[in-house]
Amino acid sequence: MRKEPIFDVAQLAHVEMYSPKPDETLWFFKELLGMEESHREGQSVYLRAYEDFYHHTLKITEAKEAGLGHVAWRATSQQALERRVSAIKETGLGKGWFEGEVGQGAAYQFTTPDGHNMELLWEVDYYKAPPELRTPLLNRPQKKPTRGVPVRRLDHVNLMNSEMKPNVDFMLNTLGFNLREHIQLKDGNDVAAWMSVSPLVHDIAMMGDPLGGMGRMHHICYWYGYPQHLMDISDLFVENGIKIEAGPGKHGVTQAYFLYVIEPGGNRVELFGDAGYLIFDPDWKPITWREEDLEKAIIWYGSQLPQEFFQYGTPIIGDKKTAPIG
Amino acid sequence: MRKEPIFDVAQLAHVEMYSPKPDETLWFFKELLGMEESHREGQSVYLRAYEDFYHHTLKITEAKEAGLGHVAWRATSQQALERRVSAIKETGLGKGWFEGEVGQGAAYQFTTPDGHNMELLWEVDYYKAPPELRTPLLNRPQKKPTRGVPVRRLDHVNLMNSEMKPNVDFMLNTLGFNLREHIQLKDGNDVAAWMSVSPLVHDIAMMGDPLGGMGRMHHICYWYGYPQHLMDISDLFVENGIKIEAGPGKHGVTQAYFLYVIEPGGNRVELFGDAGYLIFDPDWKPITWREEDLEKAIIWYGSQLPQEFFQYGTPIIGDKKTAPIG
Amino acid sequence: MRKEPIFDVAQLAHVEMYSPKPDETLWFFKELLGMEESHREGQSVYLRAYEDFYHHTLKITEAKEAGLGHVAWRATSQQALERRVSAIKETGLGKGWFEGEVGQGAAYQFTTPDGHNMELLWEVDYYKAPPELRTPLLNRPQKKPTRGVPVRRLDHVNLMNSEMKPNVDFMLNTLGFNLREHIQLKDGNDVAAWMSVSPLVHDIAMMGDPLGGMGRMHHICYWYGYPQHLMDISDLFVENGIKIEAGPGKHGVTQAYFLYVIEPGGNRVELFGDAGYLIFDPDWKPITWREEDLEKAIIWYGSQLPQEFFQYGTPIIGDKKTAPIG
Amino acid sequence: MRKEPIFDVAQLAHVEMYSPKPDETLWFFKELLGMEESHREGQSVYLRAYEDFYHHTLKITEAKEAGLGHVAWRATSQQALERRVSAIKETGLGKGWFEGEVGQGAAYQFTTPDGHNMELLWEVDYYKAPPELRTPLLNRPQKKPTRGVPVRRLDHVNLMNSEMKPNVDFMLNTLGFNLREHIQLKDGNDVAAWMSVSPLVHDIAMMGDPLGGMGRMHHICYWYGYPQHLMDISDLFVENGIKIEAGPGKHGVTQAYFLYVIEPGGNRVELFGDAGYLIFDPDWKPITWREEDLEKAIIWYGSQLPQEFFQYGTPIIGDKKTAPIG
Repeated sequence: MRKEPIFDVAQLAHVEMYSPKPDETLWFFKELLGMEESHREGQSVYLRAYEDFYHHTLKITEAKEAGLGHVAWRATSQQALERRVSAIKETGLGKGWFEGEVGQGAAYQFTTPDGHNMELLWEVDYYKAPPELRTPLLNRPQKKPTRGVPVRRLDHVNLMNSEMKPNVDFMLNTLGFNLREHIQLKDGNDVAAWMSVSPLVHDIAMMGDPLGGMGRMHHICYWYGYPQHLMDISDLFVENGIKIEAGPGKHGVTQAYFLYVIEPGGNRVELFGDAGYLIFDPDWKPITWREEDLEKAIIWYGSQLPQEFFQYGTPIIGDKKTAPIG
Repeated sequence: MRKEPIFDVAQLAHVEMYSPKPDETLWFFKELLGMEESHREGQSVYLRAYEDFYHHTLKITEAKEAGLGHVAWRATSQQALERRVSAIKETGLGKGWFEGEVGQGAAYQFTTPDGHNMELLWEVDYYKAPPELRTPLLNRPQKKPTRGVPVRRLDHVNLMNSEMKPNVDFMLNTLGFNLREHIQLKDGNDVAAWMSVSPLVHDIAMMGDPLGGMGRMHHICYWYGYPQHLMDISDLFVENGIKIEAGPGKHGVTQAYFLYVIEPGGNRVELFGDAGYLIFDPDWKPITWREEDLEKAIIWYGSQLPQEFFQYGTPIIGDKKTAPIG
Repeated sequence: MRKEPIFDVAQLAHVEMYSPKPDETLWFFKELLGMEESHREGQSVYLRAYEDFYHHTLKITEAKEAGLGHVAWRATSQQALERRVSAIKETGLGKGWFEGEVGQGAAYQFTTPDGHNMELLWEVDYYKAPPELRTPLLNRPQKKPTRGVPVRRLDHVNLMNSEMKPNVDFMLNTLGFNLREHIQLKDGNDVAAWMSVSPLVHDIAMMGDPLGGMGRMHHICYWYGYPQHLMDISDLFVENGIKIEAGPGKHGVTQAYFLYVIEPGGNRVELFGDAGYLIFDPDWKPITWREEDLEKAIIWYGSQLPQEFFQYGTPIIGDKKTAPIG
Repeated sequence: MRKEPIFDVAQLAHVEMYSPKPDETLWFFKELLGMEESHREGQSVYLRAYEDFYHHTLKITEAKEAGLGHVAWRATSQQALERRVSAIKETGLGKGWFEGEVGQGAAYQFTTPDGHNMELLWEVDYYKAPPELRTPLLNRPQKKPTRGVPVRRLDHVNLMNSEMKPNVDFMLNTLGFNLREHIQLKDGNDVAAWMSVSPLVHDIAMMGDPLGGMGRMHHICYWYGYPQHLMDISDLFVENGIKIEAGPGKHGVTQAYFLYVIEPGGNRVELFGDAGYLIFDPDWKPITWREEDLEKAIIWYGSQLPQEFFQYGTPIIGDKKTAPIG
């Protein structure tokens, strides 16, 4: 009999991102993407999209370089948290418990084999709208903002890896993610993998870092769900000096209707313009895209990806060729 | 410490629906909704949407009256199936194992307290496209049909109940569903409840039957995911003699962008035109809509629901007032 | 040989609207509909949508009662203006030339037989964006605003009439409009008529006033062109206290995807969510909707119109039953 | 006083296109674009979109090579037709009257200076739907087809020219078109011009032929009006072997949301996915895009155009480099 799946990690809770230009980064997320500020403390500002239920889903921290601060996952229960902490400890990648962060309870910190900082937690604070932001739409945590083209919720994170296999294995075996799709080269190695604990095709994606960097971030993604909103935000990006790297276009992998931009601090941000497809099958066989399938895998239709897409990540490394267009 | 959630039921697998006019019902699902026929046997025809991965998600069976045949749920594993069968047996609502249905392995049959037929299964057959229907989009089981406005996948089922509480409790406690939203009257009783095992706001909804019927079906729902498709299919419905009961419009509850029609056999079918919102929170507190919230709960904006919406179900009972408009 | 058509009136240039609550009316047009203020003078504020090329398309004037100030039409040339002025003078409805209005040259003022104030002009001032609002999209007069869900341009005006025939005849014969569609009762009289000088199905509509008022306005309409924007603005309306009277829905007449709201000053405003259909045929035969066609004429699909829609106009007359819902 | 505009040409009436693979070309237009066949005669098949009011808007004629048969324009009246025929005769480009074509009255044939065949006519036959195709939507000539993703109406034609100036001047001065937008090189010469007699930004576009061909066609365009339909038809194109050359994407020039494909006969076809913007201003000053504006002129956002887009036309000339991708 097949071993039962692990249901211990529930969802992507939040991402911390570093920015060398925090004011401009905040302008981008608040004025163009319509996000809301929950809190400021030290060099950090906490943000959430208007359909995010928790205290924050994005923490912007001032730093010398762009890049990933950490990725936080929420467990499905206190017991599940403890089980996963035990599993992480066994890998030697655990760093220990951390308390005192605003908006959440104790979190267990660890890294991926490639060195990306992560944490796992159970207790979270729920966002509570002040009276003027309360909406009669009781399943929406606050009124829809009237600024920019407001994103709805955090969707996923994409991390670059110096080596794919140990990192993917860590996500699958230690944290209990499911492999949904992957791109496999002729030599049998993966160059990209999409994994999830939810029916989303990916809560996290991992891709190889052709520059050999360790622990770099490729992008974070916020969700719109409606294709028109990618057209609407594209208008605002072009007219407000934000370089669109690629999109709107449709990936074959994940069926995501995508738009990629570089926020003023240098990090890549994806906006997701439809629902993609959802995986409810509890016995899902990963979709394998091979080299001969790559063209359709990467772009099903619409805007192509530039070469920089496959090399540029944060922190920025290498020569100028890896910088995004413009 | 909070008891851990049950993860034993994975998804809605298929629905069997009775039709007194099977040819017209098939025309509706195949020519207007673009569904594909997988198999015919006896008085039944098996259908699937082009993004449904299994052998079928809809079984149309000829019968004297419209109504629900049964609802099939897929377990998350063989072990999970066995655990739930034990739990069902304890309620006295179990009917026993059934083998020999096309497209699936053994299924355990049971009823809700109100008498709706259901089954739980683990083994399913996957749809395999013939060469002419294979698509380079490897995560899509077949090419998109060029007939009608094709629905993408089965979404949920809505059942009417003579009494709400025992039926909702059965879904929550025996099968492990989560209560996502509910409408509560001043007397504390629910008149409607939306429940899911997935991040969808509902894999199943239950509503009171004001005519006191038992085991009736309110509707099944197929998913488009794009608002435009509700406009497109509305055009086809109006011009091809299918009465639109309500929509397009947006519910407050579930945030679904909806369209309701009566198929030629008499059953109500919903088409879902966006992604609604998804619930990833493993500790979700149900949204309670009270009488004073009802107006926005039912219609957030757009098309209103006629009175018949709250009374008409299949099989049809009562006098003509319960029949859908037109 | 058929008499040649008149091409002397080119377009709807602007509308002046009265508001007893000018601050709230301005908030509605600027913060929710994203319109831009061009000028203030006396009790009037001049506004335009971001794709309107002229100085203004809406003039809000403080007044004791809501209602129409005037409708301004632009001629196709100076010569065309003079020809139409002669024709208007022959009807006895001319009031004379008016100079000194901001944003335009001399305008010839007149009324419809029902008493709606109108003017015809040739010279207009073009909007010139300040440096910070200039866009590289050279065919767009300014950057797209980041407030609300910005409307794109003025579309049409709809006027109520105590008597249809003399008013429609005036538009057709004296000004050279084309009758595109009309609703005809069994007695042969029209209750509504849609007329245009452009390929739009209507630059102006006229409908009977069942309360017998004279010179009332039914609504003005601004254009989005994208269906999603009606969903987006509906969200903002519901959450910001603006009553949606009807929509989103699709009219049979004009094929307009519509949304009707009452702005805080009391005037009805329509938002147009698609392109409708365009009439390029120079020999167009008017579409006649008869009583038996009315259901589909009024609503092709989607949200129904409440009874108030056919009675409420500005200035408000009659008892409370004519007031919009809520 | 400014000279008055000419209003003698009303609209693009139809286009004749040559195909060396007429069966495959018909399959493309009928099964994927949902067009309707009106008539067959000799080597020609006559088609129309479901919102085209006349007998046909596309005539497919079997020929050895792909390319333009002719472009037909409808005059605004019989008198207007005669005035334009006189003007054409003065240029020496007239060929004479032609009668006997199905679906229309007498047409005056002529060529552009570059040799593109054109005709001007007044009398047209209107399409009359058979009973089974009649729709209660009285302003729609027939029911919406249930095949493919049906286009709504003919939109415009784009012709390549060995020399721009004489051809653009002919359209403007002899036929009375208005120049709406143009791309001007540093030497003051235009490489592309968009012209119309209607508020559409272009009923016809002309662009230079870098291969020096004469009388070639760049593309014909059919209109959807809704962005989603470009996503929908893209799916069908990719899965049914039709190469998407570019799109979906948004042009700066014309603000068209575009998709370009090569139909099986070799001709380029554009699908137009929104309303673009409309020009009602009777005194429109052409938008001039200079070399420094070109990037945004060509692509405002979304899919880029490949190099072939600027060279490939029909009939095909030159070496393989001019062939479309794939």
